Amino acid sequence: MKIFVLGGDGFCGWATSLHLSSLGHDVVIVDNLSRRRIDAELGIESLTPISSLETRLEAWKELSGNEIRSEKIDIAKDYELLLDLFTKERPDAVVHFAEQRAAPYSMKGSKQKRYTVDNNLNATNNVLCALVESNTDAHLVHLGTMGVYGYGAFGMKIPEGYLKVQIPGNNGDVHEHEILYPASPGSVYHMTKTQDQLLFLFYNRNDRIRITDLHQGIVWGTQTEHTRLDERLINRFDYDGDYGTVLNRFLMQGAIGYPLTVHGTGGQTRAFIHLSDTVRCIQLAIDNPPAREDRVQIFNQMTETYRVRDLAKLVSEVTSAEVEFLPNPRQEADENDLHVANDRFLDLGLEPATLSEGLLEEVTEIARKYQHRCDRSKIECRSYWNQEREATAMPSASSASAASAPDVVSKK
Amino acid sequence: MKIFVLGGDGFCGWATSLHLSSLGHDVVIVDNLSRRRIDAELGIESLTPISSLETRLEAWKELSGNEIRSEKIDIAKDYELLLDLFTKERPDAVVHFAEQRAAPYSMKGSKQKRYTVDNNLNATNNVLCALVESNTDAHLVHLGTMGVYGYGAFGMKIPEGYLKVQIPGNNGDVHEHEILYPASPGSVYHMTKTQDQLLFLFYNRNDRIRITDLHQGIVWGTQTEHTRLDERLINRFDYDGDYGTVLNRFLMQGAIGYPLTVHGTGGQTRAFIHLSDTVRCIQLAIDNPPAREDRVQIFNQMTETYRVRDLAKLVSEVTSAEVEFLPNPRQEADENDLHVANDRFLDLGLEPATLSEGLLEEVTEIARKYQHRCDRSKIECRSYWNQEREATAMPSASSASAASAPDVVSKK
Repeated sequence: MKIFVLGGDGFCGWATSLHLSSLGHDVVIVDNLSRRRIDAELGIESLTPISSLETRLEAWKELSGNEIRSEKIDIAKDYELLLDLFTKERPDAVVHFAEQRAAPYSMKGSKQKRYTVDNNLNATNNVLCALVESNTDAHLVHLGTMGVYGYGAFGMKIPEGYLKVQIPGNNGDVHEHEILYPASPGSVYHMTKTQDQLLFLFYNRNDRIRITDLHQGIVWGTQTEHTRLDERLINRFDYDGDYGTVLNRFLMQGAIGYPLTVHGTGGQTRAFIHLSDTVRCIQLAIDNPPAREDRVQIFNQMTETYRVRDLAKLVSEVTSAEVEFLPNPRQEADENDLHVANDRFLDLGLEPATLSEGLLEEVTEIARKYQHRCDRSKIECRSYWNQEREATAMPSASSASAASAPDVVSKK
Repeated sequence: MKIFVLGGDGFCGWATSLHLSSLGHDVVIVDNLSRRRIDAELGIESLTPISSLETRLEAWKELSGNEIRSEKIDIAKDYELLLDLFTKERPDAVVHFAEQRAAPYSMKGSKQKRYTVDNNLNATNNVLCALVESNTDAHLVHLGTMGVYGYGAFGMKIPEGYLKVQIPGNNGDVHEHEILYPASPGSVYHMTKTQDQLLFLFYNRNDRIRITDLHQGIVWGTQTEHTRLDERLINRFDYDGDYGTVLNRFLMQGAIGYPLTVHGTGGQTRAFIHLSDTVRCIQLAIDNPPAREDRVQIFNQMTETYRVRDLAKLVSEVTSAEVEFLPNPRQEADENDLHVANDRFLDLGLEPATLSEGLLEEVTEIARKYQHRCDRSKIECRSYWNQEREATAMPSASSASAASAPDVVSKK
C-alpha cells in the first residue's frame, strides 16, 4: 500500500513511518520540519540527539532495506505542491500528523495562538481539498485528541466520537439521535482539533471522503522496536515546558534528580497510550477503513487513564524524586474523573502496553543517558492560559524559581 | 458608544454602519475592500452603482453631519495593524461582518474553498486574539448564519443556539444538559461559521470575552432609510450566481423579464430577514450585551420562513415572470421543513418587516431602474458542490444555456 505520512519527521510521525515501512508499505514522508524550527525558536533541543531526516532515511534503508521517500512541503502553505504530489503519487492512505500539537505552545501568546489556528486548519483543509481536486481515492487517517471531548462534562464514560442523546420534540415526544460528541476544547490547540472534526464532517458528507479520526491520549515512551535499532533512528524526546508531556516529563525529572512538578492539585485525570501502541493503532486504522457511504469513523486511541498526582507518586517511588506542587498555568478544573471507551481498537486486536511492564524503566534510562543534553531552565511551563492564571503563578516566585535553581534540584 | 464595524463596506456592513452612525455612535469601519476585489475577480458588478468608500463617507458626513472613519486593514492578514487599532481606539463594541459570505463562491473550486477557510477563520481568531492582547473590554457581535443548524435534522423548532438534550448515564439514569446545537454545515462557507462557534466557545470560557453570535437568515432588500438618502449612499445589490441570494435574485429576474430560476424542486425551506431588520437587530444586540460571566449569547436573526418554490410563485404573480426549474448545483435535501425560534429579538422589541408590505415592490423598482447594468450571463449559478452535482447539471445544457440566451429571456 502506498501511504503518505504528513508530519512524518515528528514524534509520533517518525515512529509510525518506520513501523509502516517495516510492514512493507511504500511510505512517503511529507514534512516541512516545523517541529525542528520551533525547537530553534524556543531555544531547546530534543533530549535525545535526533538525526537529520536525510540521515534517518539513509540509516533506515541501510538497516531494513526499505526505502522511505520524503518531500519537504509546507502543506498549510504550498497547496500546489501538495496537489501535484497527490496527482502524481495517488496514495492509498494518508496519515495526517501535520499539525502544531502542543497545548502550552498554542497558549504562549498571540503569535502562537495565531500560528496554531492558521497552520492546523489550513493544513487539514488543504489535504481535503487536494484529495477532492486530484480525485484521489485515499483513506485519510487523522490524529485527533481526547481533548476534543473536554473532561467529564456529562459524568459518563466517553464514547468513541458519537453520543446518543434524547431530544424532546415540540409535541412532548422524545426522539433518540446520535450526534458528534459536543466539543469542549481546553486550549487553542485542542480547539483546532474540534474544528478539524467539522472539516471532516463536511467533506465526508459532501465528497464522500473516507476518514478515520483518532482521538489520542497523551503519548508516553520514546522508542519503538524500530527507532531503537540504531542511534541514527532515535526518536525525539521533548522535556521542555511547552512540548514535554506529563508522564515523559516526570520520568525525565526523576532520572535527573529534578522535582516532579505537578501543576495545581494534580487531580486532573488524563488518558495515556504508549508510543508503541500508537504505531500499532495507526496500522489497525489503515487496515480497517470505513466504507464510502460511512460517516467519519472515530476511535479513542488510548489504553489507560491516570490522575496526574498518582503518576507523580508512581514515578517518585521508582526514582525517589520529590513531588513539588506549582500553580497551574492552565485554565482547567482542579479535579476530574475520566472514563473512556476504547473497545474499537481492542476489538481489532490491540494488546495494550501498560505502565507496569518495564517501559517506565526504559524511558528513565534514556533520560539518564542523555541528561547532559538537558537545559534545566527549560523544564518549567511558562505558558499561561490567561491573565488570571499568570497573575496567580507570578507572585509565588519562591517555588517557581526554586524549581529551576540548581541547588534545590537535589532535594529529594 | 465607539463601535468598530469590521466589513463595514459590504452589503449588511454598510447599511449597519449608517444606522449606528445615525444613532449617534462613533463608528469606525474596518475593511479591506475584499468584496469589491471579488467582484472584479468574477467579472461582475453590483447591479446598483455603489460609490467608493471615500465618496460614501463624504456623502454621509455632508448629509447627516456625522463622521464615520475608516481603516483599510485586512484583519485576516494584518494582525499588528488590527492590534494597534484596538489598543489606540478601545472600542466598546465590535460588529464582525468581515468574512467571505457566499456559499456558492466557497464551493467554486479549491482556490475559493481555501480562501474562505483561511480568511474567515484567521479573521475571527485575529479579532479574538487582539481583544485579549490589547485587553480591550469590548462586546463582540458576530454575524453567523442559520446554516450552522442544517435544515431540520431533529424535526423540531430550531432553538436559539443551544439545545436541551437528555443523556443516558452509565447506570440507567438520564440527565438533562444544554449543548451547543449540533452543527450541520451545508457548504465550506457555512462550515467556517460552525468553526467560528468553537472559537467563541473557547475564548468566552478562557478569557471571558463577551460575545453575541447572530444566526442570520437570508437577507433580502437592498436599501434602508439611510442608504436611500442619496445615490452616493446606495447599497450594493448582488444578482450573480455566486453572491445573489434567492429572493433578491427572483425579484431582479422578474424585473428584467428573465425566468425565475429554481434549483432542484424548490422544496428547500429557508429563513429570511429584510435588510432594515438586520440593522435593527444589530442595534438591539449592541444594546443588550451578555454579562461577563455569561456563555456566548446566541440569537436567531430571521423573521420569516419560506419554501423556495413558493417564493418563486409569489414573485411570478407580482412580475408575471415564468418559473424555470434547473438542476440543483448544491448537495442538499430536495425538500425540508424549517421552524425557527426567534423570540429573543421579538422580546427585545423587534417589529419585523414582512414580504407583504410593499418592500417587494421597492426591490423590483431598483432592479428595473438599474437593469442596463445587468450582465445576464452572470445570473446562473455555476458553482457545483461536488462532481456528482456537476455531472447531473452539465448534460442538461438545453435548459442551462437557454436560461442565459437572450432570445429566451423574454419568454414569460
